[in-house]
This record gives sequence, C-alpha cells and structure tokens, in this order.
Amino acid sequence: MTEIPSLDPPKRVLMGPGPSGADTSVLAAMGLPLLGHLDPEFIRIMDECQQMMRQVLRTENEVTLATPGTGTSGMEATVMNLLQPGDRAIIGICGYFGDRISQMAARTGAEVTIVTAPWGSPIPPEAIERELRAAPTKLVAVVHAETSTGVRQPVEAISALCKEHGALLLLDCVTSLGGVPVEIDEWGVDAAYSGTQKCLSAPPGASPVTLSPAAWSAIQAREAPSNSWYLDLNLLEAYWDSRRAYHHTSPISMTYALHRALALVLEEGLESRWHRHESNGRALQAGLEAMGLTLHADADHRLPVLTTVRIPEGITDTDIRGALLQRFGIEVGGGIGELGGRIWRVGLMGESSTAGNVLFFLASLGRLLREHGFQADVGAALDVAASRLDS
Amino acid sequence: MTEIPSLDPPKRVLMGPGPSGADTSVLAAMGLPLLGHLDPEFIRIMDECQQMMRQVLRTENEVTLATPGTGTSGMEATVMNLLQPGDRAIIGICGYFGDRISQMAARTGAEVTIVTAPWGSPIPPEAIERELRAAPTKLVAVVHAETSTGVRQPVEAISALCKEHGALLLLDCVTSLGGVPVEIDEWGVDAAYSGTQKCLSAPPGASPVTLSPAAWSAIQAREAPSNSWYLDLNLLEAYWDSRRAYHHTSPISMTYALHRALALVLEEGLESRWHRHESNGRALQAGLEAMGLTLHADADHRLPVLTTVRIPEGITDTDIRGALLQRFGIEVGGGIGELGGRIWRVGLMGESSTAGNVLFFLASLGRLLREHGFQADVGAALDVAASRLDS
Repeated sequence: MTEIPSLDPPKRVLMGPGPSGADTSVLAAMGLPLLGHLDPEFIRIMDECQQMMRQVLRTENEVTLATPGTGTSGMEATVMNLLQPGDRAIIGICGYFGDRISQMAARTGAEVTIVTAPWGSPIPPEAIERELRAAPTKLVAVVHAETSTGVRQPVEAISALCKEHGALLLLDCVTSLGGVPVEIDEWGVDAAYSGTQKCLSAPPGASPVTLSPAAWSAIQAREAPSNSWYLDLNLLEAYWDSRRAYHHTSPISMTYALHRALALVLEEGLESRWHRHESNGRALQAGLEAMGLTLHADADHRLPVLTTVRIPEGITDTDIRGALLQRFGIEVGGGIGELGGRIWRVGLMGESSTAGNVLFFLASLGRLLREHGFQADVGAALDVAASRLDS
Repeated sequence: MTEIPSLDPPKRVLMGPGPSGADTSVLAAMGLPLLGHLDPEFIRIMDECQQMMRQVLRTENEVTLATPGTGTSGMEATVMNLLQPGDRAIIGICGYFGDRISQMAARTGAEVTIVTAPWGSPIPPEAIERELRAAPTKLVAVVHAETSTGVRQPVEAISALCKEHGALLLLDCVTSLGGVPVEIDEWGVDAAYSGTQKCLSAPPGASPVTLSPAAWSAIQAREAPSNSWYLDLNLLEAYWDSRRAYHHTSPISMTYALHRALALVLEEGLESRWHRHESNGRALQAGLEAMGLTLHADADHRLPVLTTVRIPEGITDTDIRGALLQRFGIEVGGGIGELGGRIWRVGLMGESSTAGNVLFFLASLGRLLREHGFQADVGAALDVAASRLDS
C-alpha cells in the first residue's frame, strides 16, 4: 500500500477573501465531544446559535437558521426557495457574486432580469427602479459586500423601492456580516444569507440565513417544492423550529464553531467590531495609496473589510502573491472574473483584522514590489498607516 | 443584552444511527491552522483525501470527491446530476432513505418508478428486473445499508441486471462505508455517496462521492445544467481536479477531519475494520436475543453496524431512550418512518464499535427494561455477548 499521509498544515496570515483567521477558542470548540443531532443538549446549542444569529443580523425574524454548507449553500437555499417558474427576479450584477446569484436564479426557471454596474461600483437604485416599473417582480437581489470588487452596496434606497413595488429584497451578506453594519430589520431586508469564514471568523461550513415573515409566506405559497431537497427551507425550518423533524445530520462540530464565533462577536460588541474593521481597513487603504498604488473600488463605496488594489504595470500577479505566501506566509486573493490578473484582494476580516497584519502586509508587499522593479514608498506607506491605526 | 451563552457539551456514548464517536486525533485535526481553499498546501491535502477515498471505496474512479455538506448532500449531488426530465429512474424503497432518494428524484423531473420491499428486508433483484424489462431506464438506485431498518442490500445481482439493461447503478453507502465491505469497482457500481459521521467516524459535514466513467459521461451529456448549483458535479469536479476552479470555499477544518479519519481507516486496514464491526455487531445481536428481545431485520441481511431491535410490549420508547441518555450517557436512535415507536436503532460504527460499548449498552438497557417491568435476562445477555467478542 502507498504511504498513509500525515496532516500538518502550515500557519498562515489569512488576508485573502476568506477564510479569515479564527480565534483559538473557535478552533478548540470543534474538538469538544460530539453530540447526536437530536440530543437535548445539542438542540439547546442550536437554539442559542439561532438567538445569537438574530442579534448579529439585527433581526427579530423567527425563521433564522444556518444551512449545512458554505456561504454558497445559503445563497442557493434562498434563491431556490424564493423563486419558481413564472416568477420575475431582478438581479444586480456588479461583480462575481451577483453573477452567481443570477446563474442560480436561472436554474429555478424564473425569468431573470439583469441590472449591471461596472465592477468597482455599486448598483444605482435608479436602474433597479426602472426594471421594477417595467413588470411585476417577485424578488430583487443584490450583494451587500461584493467580495470580487471590494464595493459596499447601499441598501436602504433599493429596499424602499422594493416595498413600493411589492417585491421582496434578498441581500448577500457573506462578506459584510460581523465586519460592517448589517441591519436586516431596520433596512427592511426580506431574506439574507452569510458565511462563517469571513468577518464572523469561524471555519467555512455553515451559512446563517434569515427570512422575514413576507419571505416566509412567499415560500409557503409555492405551488411545487423547491428544486433542492437538501436546501429546502421548509424541511430545514422543520428541524430548526420546535418540530425538530429529522432532515439532515447537523454538522455538529461546525455548529460548535459557529456558536463560539457568534459569542465572540457579541462579547466584542457589534459597534466595537465595526469600528475595528473600519479603522484597520482605512489604515491599509491609506498605506497602499501612500505606497504609490491605486485602489480599485469607487472611493465612496470602499469596504473596509476587503480592499481591492490594482496590480501596477510590469508586475506579474502570481509572482507577488506566490512570494507573499512562500516567504511571508501571507495569503491575499487574486482577481476573479473580469478582474482576474488586474487586482489583488486584501481581506481584513474578523480575527485577521489587526493593526499588526496591516503593517506586516504593507511592509512585505512593499519589499516584494521593489524587488520586482516597482518603486514602492514603503516608509510613507507604513507611516501613514500607523498614523491611521486606532489608538 | 441577554447573557452570552457558553459552550460545554457533555460526553456521550454515541450508539445511535450517527454521528458515531470520533477519535481524539480526528477532533484535534479540526483545531489545526486554517489554510486558504486554494493554498497549494490545502490542495495537497485535498489530493490526499481523494486518493484515500478511492482506497476506502475500492475504486479507480477519477471523479472522486467530497461534497461540501452532510451525507444527504452527496445523495442530492448524485441524484440531481444523474437525472433530468425525460429520464426514467427505478428507486428501491425498503426504508426511509430509499424513500428520500425517490423524493429527490421526483424533483429532477424524471419519471420515477418505485420498487418496494417490507421495512426489514432488502429489495429482491427480481423486482428490479421486472421494471428494467418494462421500459428503458437511465438509473437504478438502492441503499446499501438502510439506516432506518438495519438491513444490508445485496448489490451484485442488481448490478448485473443494470449492466444487462444499460442502466446506471447508484448506491447509497452512507452507513456501510468503512464498516462493511464496499467494493465499488468489483461490484460495478456507477455512482456512490457516503457520509463521514457513520463508520468513517469523523464529524458530519462532508460526503465522499465517486462516479464511474459511464456515470460521468451521462452527466456530461446533460442537455441542461442540474437543478442545483451548489451541488453541480461539473462545478465541484472543476475544483477537485487539476483546474482548481473556484466554486465554493471548501470546509477546511472538516476536510482536515476527513483526512485524519480516512488515514485511521487505512492504518487499521479495511479487512480488520470490517472484522471488528462484524464481531462487535454479532455479539450485540446475540446478547439482545439472549436478553429476550426480538431483532427486527431479516436474519440473513442484518447489518453488524446498525442493529434494529423491537420495543417489547408494554415498554414506552422514550422512557428507555431518555433514561439511557440521562442516566448512562448512551445515545441510541428511535425508529423513523413507519417504524417510529416500534424499534430502537443501535449503532456500532467506527470508533463507537467497541467491546466495552456492547457490554455497557446491554447492561444498561437490561437494567432499565427490568425497572420498567420487562424481565430482561441480563446475565444471559452479557454472557452470550462476551463469548462472541473477538479475542
């Protein structure tokens, strides 16, 4: 027999588009004793997760649960359950993940209308409004924090338009939740999903999902069941609510990690956590500009948790990312979709959003850029960033 | 704010239908440093998992991967990708999980033909043959180890019939893999999925899936993409093979647990592991009969890894299961579907399959039954079981 492989992953500084670093106590939580998925003690842990998810999402929605998969499973659960043949959906695409929503929506048999904006800008509410006026619409979907471009989408104007035209609003909060303000109830969002491996700083493998009473009614009113059985929200809710009807064997250890990660978010306090992300993100962005680089996202709509920066002319994407990883143990992301090879994506999410990471990354990147012929002003970058860091 | 909950799950003896207990090193693996899902070191870990899955599944199938969800995600991935409107599928139902396959198959738009057997017996090959003769068939699906009944389905005769009639064979190996012989290539199985939380003894959260070249060709020949985007096997394979195309953020920590669990299976050796499960399962079953109880599954088709035993008249299901959990920390499963309230399901899977668990469970169950008025012969049960245990 071939040799049985051992397992010894190296330690990295995770500054890509996710996973972010996780607190030791979150990783340790996964080592706690396994429970059965219908054990009363596990049910209590699920209930606590649900209550904490509501607090982090700022919602009173009864239907609030975690789908048993990565953030994309939350996207699929909401899209596949909210849409059916005959429905019309308006999907905002200004990056990779809006496009992914539209691909899923097309598989439901719904009529999909696309509204676009350049990859680096948010969707203008007027463009949504134009399409809402054109025909009756069941669902509008936009991405709150577009991980492919580093852009934050303003939500409230679009939400008001949805209310005016009787459409439901679906919001992708994968990269925003726990890092920048997300106000599900105040904004009037009807359906939202997130991931665990971004600003919540747990490993990937669960997706918090919440549905307003209106969204839940729409799902109850379906004529045929959703395309998906695994992610059928009726079946998932019957396990998460007091019926506790068996559907799948809950990812027990992942639920422990989610529980501990949500507790850490609440212990830090949402406002403090948003402030930490804002402060570190702005320090990084100021440092990158001081170094002589150009930020990609519109200045008015830059996310602090995920920064996109253009790769300077004459510099090869993979040379720099490879050396960051191999020599400094730093992971950052490359561009995806039409931004492939043109930008880097630098995450400062959850546990990875620290002053030390900002400075270490700027110093490492600057050094590598100089080695490759780009005259990065490393001193200025570090000086500016340091002055911006939260005291 | 309400108090932030702490996390302190109690230690259980997991003898239900899963999750089973996990080795300390598997739980500890999830605490290893997180890597990015495209990190070369993580890609190596995925490749090693793939190679070990092939060894455990006894297959050379190139398309062998783990879907990012529980065992049910593997069921959905195979069913949703292999079937499309216009296809005919024959589904064997002799328990809860065959029925689940048929529900999923119906959602693909395929024509679904059901073949049944009593819940406690396997599907007779003749019944499948009759339906294969009736009309051209794309797919036959059966459950190898029916977790709801404790029955092992013989596979080879059905596989030969599928070959004869040009149908693909899908096998549910959730509860069998790593506990009883599973021979994907030797048996001519075209598609199979399993779970991690049964005889592989990792936490729930990933599903090993393998596809024969014929099954893969059938997926390539689809006219429209599968109902599911999250579990689209074309997209999943593009991440698992050398293209490494981004699809989802792999459940990193769960992949570590799978890696370690597969390594433990190979270190023990498949034959030794099957023998251990066989020996402990037969000792339990002999002990239960010696105690005066009646086993539910057909004697010729009893699984060693999951034993179903009838609840004696006058005994209330939940009284006994509740006391087993509260007083002895032992979890066993109740019946589901039409066997609800009529049987208990006792798992001896993976790390939970030990001589100590057999004896501890028999002693605890016997004591509780006597307290509730059933004259269990505990001495005989322990004596018989002990004599059957592997020396």
